[in-house]
Amino acid sequence: MTKEGNGPQVHMEANRGGLKDGWFFEENQGSSSFGIRVSEHLHSERSEYQKIDVYDSEFFGRFLTLDDLMMFTERDEFVYHEMLTHLPLCSLPTPERVLIVGGGDCGCAREILRHPCVRQVVQCDIDERVTRVCEGFFKWLAPVLESPRFEALFADGIEYLRHCEGDFDLIIIDSTDPIGPAVGLFQSAFFETARRALRPGGVLVNQTESVHWSSELVAAVVGQMREVFPQVATYWGAIPTYPSGSWCWSYASETRSPADFFDAERAELVARDCRYYHPAMQSAAFALPLFLRRALEEEARA
Amino acid sequence: MTKEGNGPQVHMEANRGGLKDGWFFEENQGSSSFGIRVSEHLHSERSEYQKIDVYDSEFFGRFLTLDDLMMFTERDEFVYHEMLTHLPLCSLPTPERVLIVGGGDCGCAREILRHPCVRQVVQCDIDERVTRVCEGFFKWLAPVLESPRFEALFADGIEYLRHCEGDFDLIIIDSTDPIGPAVGLFQSAFFETARRALRPGGVLVNQTESVHWSSELVAAVVGQMREVFPQVATYWGAIPTYPSGSWCWSYASETRSPADFFDAERAELVARDCRYYHPAMQSAAFALPLFLRRALEEEARA
Repeated sequence: MTKEGNGPQVHMEANRGGLKDGWFFEENQGSSSFGIRVSEHLHSERSEYQKIDVYDSEFFGRFLTLDDLMMFTERDEFVYHEMLTHLPLCSLPTPERVLIVGGGDCGCAREILRHPCVRQVVQCDIDERVTRVCEGFFKWLAPVLESPRFEALFADGIEYLRHCEGDFDLIIIDSTDPIGPAVGLFQSAFFETARRALRPGGVLVNQTESVHWSSELVAAVVGQMREVFPQVATYWGAIPTYPSGSWCWSYASETRSPADFFDAERAELVARDCRYYHPAMQSAAFALPLFLRRALEEEARA
Repeated sequence: MTKEGNGPQVHMEANRGGLKDGWFFEENQGSSSFGIRVSEHLHSERSEYQKIDVYDSEFFGRFLTLDDLMMFTERDEFVYHEMLTHLPLCSLPTPERVLIVGGGDCGCAREILRHPCVRQVVQCDIDERVTRVCEGFFKWLAPVLESPRFEALFADGIEYLRHCEGDFDLIIIDSTDPIGPAVGLFQSAFFETARRALRPGGVLVNQTESVHWSSELVAAVVGQMREVFPQVATYWGAIPTYPSGSWCWSYASETRSPADFFDAERAELVARDCRYYHPAMQSAAFALPLFLRRALEEEARA
């Protein structure tokens, strides 16, 4: 994945995190720090790809870190997983086949399976150990892994997508930060591969980083998406344990705007099991803070 | 202020904060911690009411703490001040007189003065030293303090309000957390005093704490407001340096719902100088995370 689009470079400095004096902390750009008091360090291993840790804490419950960076806590993972799935799914009339690239913790799959119309969820994460470790510590994995509608592949998502053609109604990129091997998942060459794997009218959704602390990065990633997709729209939500406390995702399609269609009935149905998403979020989440909207407008003019 | 409403008790444990090893940190409920790398400790004093500190930092600029708790940073104060002012002001056809209770840093006053129709802003903060210290370190205070439309009173806001009757189109409660003396500002007896100080059709807006980490407290405060005001609606925004990274405010009126009126033209005008608020936020900010909406619905049924 050395080929890059023409937009600004997608680049991010790795944050620094770890366990110190009974606290898990994560430093952002050496300027701010978020910490969680740990009650128990439940698991630690190095897989072929990364360091995987699971901690327990009183306030946040159990939480997973990869390479010492926060992935999710039991207390607030619902925001990320609900917003990355229900919003795009409810913008599609009858989504049947969904691909998750990354997402080894199965949080996205859990939410997608709430939609009765979805017949198959394929999850392609490169690191099987993430799924196996999570299976041992987080109770939502067992029912997902047992579902006949769910298929877990442990492979390179980019390679996998190269062999798909017009297969999916929705592709969700549930990746780590654009650092090291994950950088490829934020570049136009990858989005082009993904585009070809979508059915006509299909949608790709991508996690596009911190609202407050990386508007330039958000704009750079959206610029890469715009090279491939005529329609790209960014939306956001509040996640306390992610840098700056709010996060955004971007919705891309060849033909579809998120405002074109909304299955309010299905949104109401899935929201019964939600804690963040509900029908009014479907449009409200696109009202970005003005500074981020301006950064995206500027990117579009560049 | 010992009289209380019949709703659940408004109560909050004080967070713990301070300077340690070159970082300002604030701990929430002993469970999480947010830190900012400090480049210089610019000022420290104890006023008659509280400890006042000003720090400098590379990423967040200068920031103010009271009793070692974060009040605002130059980097993200705009969210709080824009959302506490422009949203209610744009819901009123011609707001002329506005009262700020607290707000000694003049951030709210700075935003209110952008509305040409506002003829007078009265700011009543008990601690003159906050304003004087901020005047020395934050550049927006000088033009506010010099404005002929602005009046600063240094007095007990509750006492001051007792002598007002039908005077204000908008009352903004820009207070510290409901701890110690500020608890009174979150109780129905105070809201009743404030109600009498509003003109017919007037609005009160109050900061009502963290979205993610205090939904019970938010519901308790809103319960106190509902004892006095038939219309109460809560809205929210993303503020990285406040606990959990998102914050909410509540809009209360005897007769007016925030959906009744919107001066889109004035909103567009003031948004030119904004970085967070813009016309689409006027309704989107009321789409609360579902868990908070449920907590408020439960309070309403209780």
